[in-house]
Amino acid sequence: MPQRISIVEDIMSANDRLAGENREVFDKAGVFAINIMASPGAGKTTFIIKTLEALHGRLRMGVIEGDLATSIDADKAAAAGLPAVQINTGGDCHLDAVMVSNALPAMPLDNLDLVLVENVGNLVCPASFALGTHINVLIASIPEGDDKPYKYPGMYRGVQALVISKIDLLPYVPFNMDYFRHGVEILNPGLVTFPVSAKTGEGMEVWADWLVEQVKGK
Amino acid sequence: MPQRISIVEDIMSANDRLAGENREVFDKAGVFAINIMASPGAGKTTFIIKTLEALHGRLRMGVIEGDLATSIDADKAAAAGLPAVQINTGGDCHLDAVMVSNALPAMPLDNLDLVLVENVGNLVCPASFALGTHINVLIASIPEGDDKPYKYPGMYRGVQALVISKIDLLPYVPFNMDYFRHGVEILNPGLVTFPVSAKTGEGMEVWADWLVEQVKGK
Repeated sequence: MPQRISIVEDIMSANDRLAGENREVFDKAGVFAINIMASPGAGKTTFIIKTLEALHGRLRMGVIEGDLATSIDADKAAAAGLPAVQINTGGDCHLDAVMVSNALPAMPLDNLDLVLVENVGNLVCPASFALGTHINVLIASIPEGDDKPYKYPGMYRGVQALVISKIDLLPYVPFNMDYFRHGVEILNPGLVTFPVSAKTGEGMEVWADWLVEQVKGK
Repeated sequence: MPQRISIVEDIMSANDRLAGENREVFDKAGVFAINIMASPGAGKTTFIIKTLEALHGRLRMGVIEGDLATSIDADKAAAAGLPAVQINTGGDCHLDAVMVSNALPAMPLDNLDLVLVENVGNLVCPASFALGTHINVLIASIPEGDDKPYKYPGMYRGVQALVISKIDLLPYVPFNMDYFRHGVEILNPGLVTFPVSAKTGEGMEVWADWLVEQVKGK
């Protein structure tokens, strides 16, 4: 008599298993990997390219770019001299561990210290899918407004660092930093934050120094 | 012998059916309804409140606010004098027809001409779920950048009007309007667009006039 096999696929558990395998690949190559998440247009790609500059060669960095369509971001990263792979998700609102796994063979991992994985611009879906990176970083941009922690709590809870981008726009938009930080503190007490402007360069060195510490200390 | 019943639920078809029922409710009450979609922080709520002002009483307007959590947006709308209902989706990245259906009894539809439904801030998920509104409007904010049509084509394809918000920030951020408009035109030829600044009021009257035409002409 045949065994009964459950056909219910546990998608999340399959994703977590594959994320674990990705982590092993990163670890074996000695690569520290970061999942970078944000709204559309928070400035992820520009921030990544400016991170390369602020590192002044202290880390060898590569990027995996996630978008529904186009290779605009990978093209920009490659133009800046970064090893870059573009993932197109089709309609999916987030990267998952399978997509990252498929991208890894195209990355020269043995020659890298750090891989930044730029997720699809979205404050909801990416929070639920582990990719196998070592930490999650959220970029919140000033023009998005100060109420985002309250409205997208899942995203703010699931990250190990928060970059506050486009601080050069603070004089031109309403943004109550105390209200914003209060929301962050409720959801993720003690979260390390990096206020930056990719435009003026403000804060980028502090972020880059922290990044070097994370990679060397892993 | 019992009939065999398929247990496969066609979620999208169920949503479309219920969206049709919502439309009937709107039509019976003589209400024109708009599904407003955008990234997190594109300025949807502020735009809605400024729309009320620009209408100068020409239309009786109400709002249904969609967010993962909090009633921040409905509170703001109510404070501005608008009949407002808040939907909290829990973890869901979009409104659907069931949620809107559940919100409708709380709206004084017989005393309204126009209902704006503010979807969850997201450029992916909301595009796939009809709500029963008459048209979809996308708000794209200047600080999000000029490449969004290329990266989120599904959203740009599925709307009947495009509001370009925060144009007061144009002097402070890189944004190539020709490149942006070219992307829009490829995906949605002839799409009507409304460049606005809720801050300065620029463009709001043109939008409000168009809105009155749509409602009176339906």
